[in-house]
Amino acid sequence: MRRKAVVLLSGGLDSTTCLALALDAGFEVYALSFNYHQRHKIELEAAQRVVAALGAAGCLNLDLPLDAIGGSALTDASLAVPKDATAEEMQSRIPITYVPARNTIFLSLALGYAEVLGASDIFIGVNALDYSGYPDCRPAFIAAFESMANLATKQSVEGRLRYTIHTPLISMSKAQIIRTGRALGVDYSLTFSCYDPTPAGHACGHCDSCLLRQKGFAEADAASV
Amino acid sequence: MRRKAVVLLSGGLDSTTCLALALDAGFEVYALSFNYHQRHKIELEAAQRVVAALGAAGCLNLDLPLDAIGGSALTDASLAVPKDATAEEMQSRIPITYVPARNTIFLSLALGYAEVLGASDIFIGVNALDYSGYPDCRPAFIAAFESMANLATKQSVEGRLRYTIHTPLISMSKAQIIRTGRALGVDYSLTFSCYDPTPAGHACGHCDSCLLRQKGFAEADAASV
Repeated sequence: MRRKAVVLLSGGLDSTTCLALALDAGFEVYALSFNYHQRHKIELEAAQRVVAALGAAGCLNLDLPLDAIGGSALTDASLAVPKDATAEEMQSRIPITYVPARNTIFLSLALGYAEVLGASDIFIGVNALDYSGYPDCRPAFIAAFESMANLATKQSVEGRLRYTIHTPLISMSKAQIIRTGRALGVDYSLTFSCYDPTPAGHACGHCDSCLLRQKGFAEADAASV
Repeated sequence: MRRKAVVLLSGGLDSTTCLALALDAGFEVYALSFNYHQRHKIELEAAQRVVAALGAAGCLNLDLPLDAIGGSALTDASLAVPKDATAEEMQSRIPITYVPARNTIFLSLALGYAEVLGASDIFIGVNALDYSGYPDCRPAFIAAFESMANLATKQSVEGRLRYTIHTPLISMSKAQIIRTGRALGVDYSLTFSCYDPTPAGHACGHCDSCLLRQKGFAEADAASV
């Protein structure tokens, strides 16, 4: 019997690559997405396209009204998404697009889903290199979450499951992520990364996420010439 | 300025006592409740009564459709709530009323709420003595969650907040909890503990939660005679 894995899937470049890697590793994959009332909830359409293209044994889209908590430009329309940040700016600050405790919340729900499925493996596409300085993308956080998870559930306490949080992208550059996904046949035109899409649903081209994506493709394409 | 605290409040006996203790300790209290599509969502009316009676600087009720994940008699109507368990049965098994990763999920959302409020203190009414054997009520789990939380957020990583997860009831019997609350003026007739209320909203009197509550009041009243 194939081992089951839960993959957190936003529909962006990183989580889509993560899904491809989990499938390539032979897992029976269950994708988990969240409508967290994010400014860019159009990314959920990309998540659906990705699941349709790559395949998954199951997928769950959970409603999670994080706008009621707020505190981020991604969940509070009154806060502006920063545009045209330099690489230095991106490395030197945790931006207003940080969503309080988001990865803790997402991983916690993934843990509950994994326990019900009998899955011991959870994939998250965090990345500590070309990223926006988010605290919950760092290896120390992931290790602490994994330790906590193994004390948290019936399945782990009764010794039936030992959870592993997989972060296959954590040390990759965006260009490496793109090359990895392309080698696995990922069509990145299906994915969507922008934090602040236009009313027509197009990427803004200026937020941190757009800039990192553009830089990644530029580097990946230059390397492949 | 008073320190802020987030208190997880279900409307039951334990979390209500926890709220009273946080207020008594001088915190500016923000109550956080969840409509997790639980069988006994009538408990949320009790949570409102408790906040009205004891007071709170704020309260937030978040919708969280854990029935989409299922795996528990509390979120899946097709699973029966166990009735009339003996004390030995309660101590020897993790029952079907266990909700996968529930306290991890609730504490994660409390962490996000705390970060936005600038609160470093989170109260949860877990109890490792008169309880149903849930793994996420044990001191080892709480300690692991606290360690993880302090690596998870912008406020903790930038050194502005050091989170403490308070579990003032963890070593108390139900009778001790009731005596503690009574000394603080808690009116327990406002609270609601049953997992499986009747259609009219009355406690069933036979689930683990009802039995523990009855035993607690019997012992507290015997001790006070």
